[in-house]
Amino acid sequence: MYTYKKRVSFYENDGMSVVWHGNYIKWFEDARVGYFLAAGLDLRTLLEKGIVFPILKVQAEYRKSAHFGETIAVKTYLRRLDRASAYFEYEVCNDETGELLVTGSTLNAFESAKTGRIVRIPEELIAPLRSFAKEDQRHE
Amino acid sequence: MYTYKKRVSFYENDGMSVVWHGNYIKWFEDARVGYFLAAGLDLRTLLEKGIVFPILKVQAEYRKSAHFGETIAVKTYLRRLDRASAYFEYEVCNDETGELLVTGSTLNAFESAKTGRIVRIPEELIAPLRSFAKEDQRHE
Amino acid sequence: MYTYKKRVSFYENDGMSVVWHGNYIKWFEDARVGYFLAAGLDLRTLLEKGIVFPILKVQAEYRKSAHFGETIAVKTYLRRLDRASAYFEYEVCNDETGELLVTGSTLNAFESAKTGRIVRIPEELIAPLRSFAKEDQRHE
Amino acid sequence: MYTYKKRVSFYENDGMSVVWHGNYIKWFEDARVGYFLAAGLDLRTLLEKGIVFPILKVQAEYRKSAHFGETIAVKTYLRRLDRASAYFEYEVCNDETGELLVTGSTLNAFESAKTGRIVRIPEELIAPLRSFAKEDQRHE
Repeated sequence: MYTYKKRVSFYENDGMSVVWHGNYIKWFEDARVGYFLAAGLDLRTLLEKGIVFPILKVQAEYRKSAHFGETIAVKTYLRRLDRASAYFEYEVCNDETGELLVTGSTLNAFESAKTGRIVRIPEELIAPLRSFAKEDQRHE
Repeated sequence: MYTYKKRVSFYENDGMSVVWHGNYIKWFEDARVGYFLAAGLDLRTLLEKGIVFPILKVQAEYRKSAHFGETIAVKTYLRRLDRASAYFEYEVCNDETGELLVTGSTLNAFESAKTGRIVRIPEELIAPLRSFAKEDQRHE
Repeated sequence: MYTYKKRVSFYENDGMSVVWHGNYIKWFEDARVGYFLAAGLDLRTLLEKGIVFPILKVQAEYRKSAHFGETIAVKTYLRRLDRASAYFEYEVCNDETGELLVTGSTLNAFESAKTGRIVRIPEELIAPLRSFAKEDQRHE
Repeated sequence: MYTYKKRVSFYENDGMSVVWHGNYIKWFEDARVGYFLAAGLDLRTLLEKGIVFPILKVQAEYRKSAHFGETIAVKTYLRRLDRASAYFEYEVCNDETGELLVTGSTLNAFESAKTGRIVRIPEELIAPLRSFAKEDQRHE
């Protein structure tokens, strides 16, 4: 599990003075990138090797709103990982109160930038990720 | 069914030179607003009456990418409507080739801006929407 | 002069229920792209030729706010053009009332995607643009 | 002087694999909000008192590009401050190399949310800001 935190920006609020719902999709991505980094895998390394990481599915459920100025924490779990895809789940909480605001998930594939076909990423790149994610998979 | 069209903006492409996946969430919203307008309901009228329309769920599946400069068409179906919520489905196509790129759905509630509670919107506001949506519900 | 129009999206409003100021920068870009298209130059053609069009300067002044649901018109003038750069000015108006909301300008260069150096774009690509822009330059 | 830092998000890159120029406008705002916080003034406190802080002018010059995954530092200077307006200057640097990428400035006014007129903000709110900004004004 990796936790991504950020202070909500003014421009992330919408006309209802709550965070616009699409911004959580951005935070999911920042959390995913942070997860990989925390596990020792810089997505830029994949890109340099010609491997891209396109999204196949995204889903979110909204319970409560975040607001400008609050700090949110995105608890990020890599629930399923194989050499061709990665399935993440997210819990966005108010970092001060711990209240759960939004849940979501994403499914990404590992693809060749050249051919657009699914590729299996090299074992030495995926190994640290698999190790880091072990606990997330037990707790599903 | 209502079709929202737009030419893809340069800034909607991401570093992979395809539309960044979160932008489809924006297009879903533009399509939803356009649907209401086409049905004779301006969301601003709801807002003036103290009724907001927060999102409860969003979901998208990505098959193919849209790109800068292409025109996309978002076919928008109001699949379920009652006085407290509205469930839409979306098909994003390349407008020139007709190819299906992305599908998605959203669930929104009608809520009181004051209390944050679910409200039933007045029958005279929802009636034209219900009439416009009739075919979408048959075709589900 | 080219006029870009759009209906303001819900997600373009900020927490003050007016369009967030950075969105005008997006509209300037959409207007610029539209200007080129109207003049017969698709920026994608430049990109295919390895010519990119990075921004050097942007500037905006805010007088009045646009709001969700309004249609805005961006009057777009190509004030200076040579084979290495293009200077645009913008006037964002409420399309219904004609009221001037925001003014701005941008300076872009034509650069080689490979070397990052300024390049002079081929005369046959710039000629239609120059012809289209003639009036904008007289009226400066 | 206040320094705002962030790691560049994947979705902030554009189709040229550099940060899209409008994102610097977002970072300027995050930096401005951070500056106020560092000086002991939470913009939300102003909002609660019915004082808004709309932007009058923004300007940016682009020298070099930031890229996904890099950490950028926005050095933020409050160059002029009075009870009715605030003028900031920004220097966006690559945090690792120190290289200057983008410079910019903004002018904001303090306005009544109710009337839309310029207001003078209470001395007790502006005093800590003035004290924090003293050095920025000397160094102009």
